[in-house]
Amino acid sequence: MRPNSKLSIIALVAVALACTVAIAGAQNPLPSWNDGPTKKAIMAFVYDVTREGSLSYVKPAERIATFDNDGTLWAEQPMYFQFLFMLDRIKALAPQHPEWKTQEPFASLLKGDMKAVLAGGEKALGQLMMATHVGMTSEEFEKSVSDWVATARHPKTGRLFTEMVYQPMLELLAFLRENGFKTFIVSGGGIEFMRPWSQRVYGIPPEQVIGSSVKTKFDLRDGKPVLVRLPEINFVDDGPGKPVGIQMHIGRRPIAAFGNSDGDHQMLQWTAAGEGPRFMLLVHHTDADREWAYDRQSPIGRLDKALDEALRRGWTIVDMKKDWKRVFPF
Amino acid sequence: MRPNSKLSIIALVAVALACTVAIAGAQNPLPSWNDGPTKKAIMAFVYDVTREGSLSYVKPAERIATFDNDGTLWAEQPMYFQFLFMLDRIKALAPQHPEWKTQEPFASLLKGDMKAVLAGGEKALGQLMMATHVGMTSEEFEKSVSDWVATARHPKTGRLFTEMVYQPMLELLAFLRENGFKTFIVSGGGIEFMRPWSQRVYGIPPEQVIGSSVKTKFDLRDGKPVLVRLPEINFVDDGPGKPVGIQMHIGRRPIAAFGNSDGDHQMLQWTAAGEGPRFMLLVHHTDADREWAYDRQSPIGRLDKALDEALRRGWTIVDMKKDWKRVFPF
Repeated sequence: MRPNSKLSIIALVAVALACTVAIAGAQNPLPSWNDGPTKKAIMAFVYDVTREGSLSYVKPAERIATFDNDGTLWAEQPMYFQFLFMLDRIKALAPQHPEWKTQEPFASLLKGDMKAVLAGGEKALGQLMMATHVGMTSEEFEKSVSDWVATARHPKTGRLFTEMVYQPMLELLAFLRENGFKTFIVSGGGIEFMRPWSQRVYGIPPEQVIGSSVKTKFDLRDGKPVLVRLPEINFVDDGPGKPVGIQMHIGRRPIAAFGNSDGDHQMLQWTAAGEGPRFMLLVHHTDADREWAYDRQSPIGRLDKALDEALRRGWTIVDMKKDWKRVFPF
Repeated sequence: MRPNSKLSIIALVAVALACTVAIAGAQNPLPSWNDGPTKKAIMAFVYDVTREGSLSYVKPAERIATFDNDGTLWAEQPMYFQFLFMLDRIKALAPQHPEWKTQEPFASLLKGDMKAVLAGGEKALGQLMMATHVGMTSEEFEKSVSDWVATARHPKTGRLFTEMVYQPMLELLAFLRENGFKTFIVSGGGIEFMRPWSQRVYGIPPEQVIGSSVKTKFDLRDGKPVLVRLPEINFVDDGPGKPVGIQMHIGRRPIAAFGNSDGDHQMLQWTAAGEGPRFMLLVHHTDADREWAYDRQSPIGRLDKALDEALRRGWTIVDMKKDWKRVFPF
């Protein structure tokens, strides 16, 4: 054999291998999911609704999938990340507010006494919200979120918060979109807190993000139009608010919904009650080693009533420990 | 020449002609617009923002275009079509409400005395709204709209209301979408009044419809989840409300906005104030023969302050009479 033809054979083998890998990639679109009933249920649902001519076929326009964010797409421990954003903002704004040194709940927070802050309850939380989330324009708030997301680190892992997303869920989002689904976030978190990074991190554009909001007001400042964030709640996109937010923003019922807590219960009920094929999934945090383990007793992301209904009705439950090969992208 | 080859030549000519027409179609995507500065301005803007490598290039994700509905995409005379829907609904519901025979404003309406109804002012309007727009589920309301839209006729033209749309604007919507734009409705009208037919008539899916709304509430009726429409205004998507609605639903600023009245003024200001290439357009109703002619003095679709600013700032103004070859698709 001439060296030349040997090279050709090596090239051929390389091409063949590359093809095999490409096909395997297409056949295994959820590489971070262990084989088992959960992955199988997801794949079967997507196969069913996309197979033209089948009884369960759903046309692309109706392939609406809604995802909770905290605890479903990214972590939510030791507390909701937006709460940590708020704390950091207070520290960043403190130099402009010397009065906070003696004024609660700011004084305790700046001293690092979180117990005292939390003892202030809803009133304290409201004051922190007012100081960090309203009074500025939408653009100013967006900038404060973008700056924080680019630099702030998770207290336990030391990672950027946008790295604390679940790799299997990223794959699931991409898999659904490849199959003609439109993916939406439907979160109890602030709508404007998620939009600055949802496209980059999840591939979800701002117009497909639904969340809680404060009222805003159109104003002209020196002839320049601005939207000012007002100290008044506009909408709470949590629990029974989620179907309301879905109808308001999407105007049709999802055929698939993904959550992890009782705050997602009504979204899953609303999704389940539609006609035709349906898919309801709960992420159950069962992995204390790689992430956190919590459910019925947790003050954050409590999963109790929704878990009961999921078990009763056969909704898909992700056992994080068993079902996920890896948790985070890092 | 044998008859056969004569036939072949005719076939060839026919094919050639068909090709010419096809190319002209591609080159002339706005056939119902007369050539002139208005059409030229639209074409130039779309060309500018889609030409890769150009300074004014805008990536597809940012190509957001917002359209008012009443008076911009469909007619609004002799009064807003949603108002006519409301009147028809009262008549349809009257048999279930014998008390309306003596109760104002229903009694006057059922007798056909519109003057007396309108004399009742906002209070009467509120009562008619309550009777026709709330108290039912979202699905029930959707059905009432779909039924009406399928059968009700315009009092002047005798056409279905969904035929009273502007052919040049349908072409413009399609042209923008072909060029990577995402088209949204941003209307003072009811969001759930437009969604049942926006896809079929405008090619705009429900999730890209923004409008005024009442509050809704998630409820379980006999274990079945429903959204109940409450007798409380949620959001007025008009005037200064339009930029607020845009930010709430889209989360980014349009680069092009299309309106026809002072209710669209702030939407155009908000659009104009963004960075990069911008396009603001007002439809000016100047055609009393083919449609209606009205502007500064009209109680419906008043165009006064926005017209002044458009003239001052060089926004594009459609002169319906001069710029449109045809008005309606029929």
